[in-house]
Amino acid sequence: MAEGTPGSLAVVGTGLIGTSIALAARAAGLDVRGFDPDPEALQGAVDRGALEPAAGVEACVAGAGIAIVAAPMDHVTETALACLRADPDLVVTDAGSAKTDVVAAVDAAANEEEAARFVAGHPMTGSERSGPGAASASLLDGTAWVLCAGPRTSAASLEVVESLVRAVGAQPLTMDAERHDRLVALISHLPQLASTALMRVAAVRAAGEPELMLLAAGGFRDLTRLAASNPELWADILLANAGRARDAIDVYVDSLHQLGELLKSGDRDALIDVFRRSKEARLEMGAKPSAKVGVAILSVPIPDRPGVLADVTSTLGALGINIEDLEIVHSAEGAKGSLHVTVEEGSAEEAVRALADRGYEVGRLA
Amino acid sequence: MAEGTPGSLAVVGTGLIGTSIALAARAAGLDVRGFDPDPEALQGAVDRGALEPAAGVEACVAGAGIAIVAAPMDHVTETALACLRADPDLVVTDAGSAKTDVVAAVDAAANEEEAARFVAGHPMTGSERSGPGAASASLLDGTAWVLCAGPRTSAASLEVVESLVRAVGAQPLTMDAERHDRLVALISHLPQLASTALMRVAAVRAAGEPELMLLAAGGFRDLTRLAASNPELWADILLANAGRARDAIDVYVDSLHQLGELLKSGDRDALIDVFRRSKEARLEMGAKPSAKVGVAILSVPIPDRPGVLADVTSTLGALGINIEDLEIVHSAEGAKGSLHVTVEEGSAEEAVRALADRGYEVGRLA
Repeated sequence: MAEGTPGSLAVVGTGLIGTSIALAARAAGLDVRGFDPDPEALQGAVDRGALEPAAGVEACVAGAGIAIVAAPMDHVTETALACLRADPDLVVTDAGSAKTDVVAAVDAAANEEEAARFVAGHPMTGSERSGPGAASASLLDGTAWVLCAGPRTSAASLEVVESLVRAVGAQPLTMDAERHDRLVALISHLPQLASTALMRVAAVRAAGEPELMLLAAGGFRDLTRLAASNPELWADILLANAGRARDAIDVYVDSLHQLGELLKSGDRDALIDVFRRSKEARLEMGAKPSAKVGVAILSVPIPDRPGVLADVTSTLGALGINIEDLEIVHSAEGAKGSLHVTVEEGSAEEAVRALADRGYEVGRLA
Repeated sequence: MAEGTPGSLAVVGTGLIGTSIALAARAAGLDVRGFDPDPEALQGAVDRGALEPAAGVEACVAGAGIAIVAAPMDHVTETALACLRADPDLVVTDAGSAKTDVVAAVDAAANEEEAARFVAGHPMTGSERSGPGAASASLLDGTAWVLCAGPRTSAASLEVVESLVRAVGAQPLTMDAERHDRLVALISHLPQLASTALMRVAAVRAAGEPELMLLAAGGFRDLTRLAASNPELWADILLANAGRARDAIDVYVDSLHQLGELLKSGDRDALIDVFRRSKEARLEMGAKPSAKVGVAILSVPIPDRPGVLADVTSTLGALGINIEDLEIVHSAEGAKGSLHVTVEEGSAEEAVRALADRGYEVGRLA
């Protein structure tokens, strides 16, 4: 455990995120107590070996040093205030997806001393599954975790939370709440809306023309994967950041209209220029959020036969080469594709050679 | 070789698609000749063992039975006409991404007898790479291949092309050209535009706020993968179907605005309803275009450590279970994720058991 890390953590709300944090904190050597008003969720976290159960919020947080409120968005403010009032030495943070409202609400309701001890937060992680059964310490590993200080938050409180974030393997990223909400509207909420809207358009059309879906290839599948996300969860996330999400829709619609205008004008060079700049920006992203630099992305065309994936992954595994990311990339307009295998830059040459020895035509994308 | 399959194929244009078709046709027992005005592309196809080179279009197609024009879109019509005129018994098809214009142009320029022998086509496949070096017979395997008869195309010609399509392992799907262009505008061209527009919005914003990209998680990455496609190729595809692509943009923008209105009204139930219906439609798609029914999708949470992919794929491979599709699915708003492993329905129980025995908590998504 790094110096300055609180020795004890209270987790209020033991769903997917709360239990994942508890598991990672335990693995880092912290004592972890937990509480959830839903006895089943609490027992689920206990069954996972994530924490010791407490009988209520006050029992959970008393003497803990730091508490994290991982509750549904509409319960975060009241729960955070209850925690702040239960123990005068407790630093409190939360894990909600929008931050402006909760920072303002806690600041409005808390006294000077309480407000100093609250740090709003948002670990940029999750899963398409929910509940303590789906929790995993690895969910936090290497992910960005935004922290938003309020107007009266103390620097000491911020340091305590940053220390917890690092202890569970995540990367603290400090910014003000309004900025967080604006950025996630574009980079997280807009993709969800774009995906759901596209799937909706296709589903409505396919109701009359079922052949449409026979033509759906890899590109469409990539774009609509997010549309399978949890409806209730996303409705609440979006409603908590509705104004900024609508701003993001407007910016996106402008960008779509600009492409439509280029199609109308038939200006091939201008169209190619937009496509080229977007392509460059996408390739610059790298393959993995937590490994932006120092990775190589290899493209391996794959025939549709058993054992190819095992062969590729085992070949690299046998050499001790860690696969940072892997995807079956369907082509821009096709059903077939390649494996994109992301490895550390230092392993790239060895990986290419080993796969070539096995008969794969490996290309290098980045 | 199935009865009725032409014994000889001429491939005019030996890039990615032409060479892939040649490889698949050779594997199916056809004689294959090829020509490309670019000597390097032709030699590349020869080096791949895909075909015998011919000195020109006429030498390539003479006596072939069937010719496929896999040329850039602006050369398809003239090349198809040259083929039709080079051999009075030849059936000619093409592989372009838009069909209305080429059907009309060939029909306008061809006489009755020539027009009877032309069948427009579009194999719904491709790769993010190009050229004969990236070709693969597996690119055709199981993919939908749209065939569009013109007003004077003979039924016998259509049957010859259908037979070729089946011989190379693809699925013929007959529809009129206008309908093809309308459907691909929605299911193929719109996703490309949606992806490029999203990447553009983010890149422009990130120029002023670089932290934006640190928050980019799996969802954003899924949505923007297509933005890395070939700019010139896509400019030409979209310009050849510009009117319908713009119609698709309009429908999509309407759908986005409807979501924006729901956010404005704050109608949580209506928002959840839209999300729920899109989720259901996405899950109905299954994981693989050519395997829509009879597959199971398993979700396997993965820790970020070497060897996990090899372990999962080898465990299934050792049991002879074919992995139909596999993706590392980053969460809706996070960097971490699960493996989604698609297997045949009949293997699903065995796969779940085997992975559970290895300590994985396997969920079933579909």
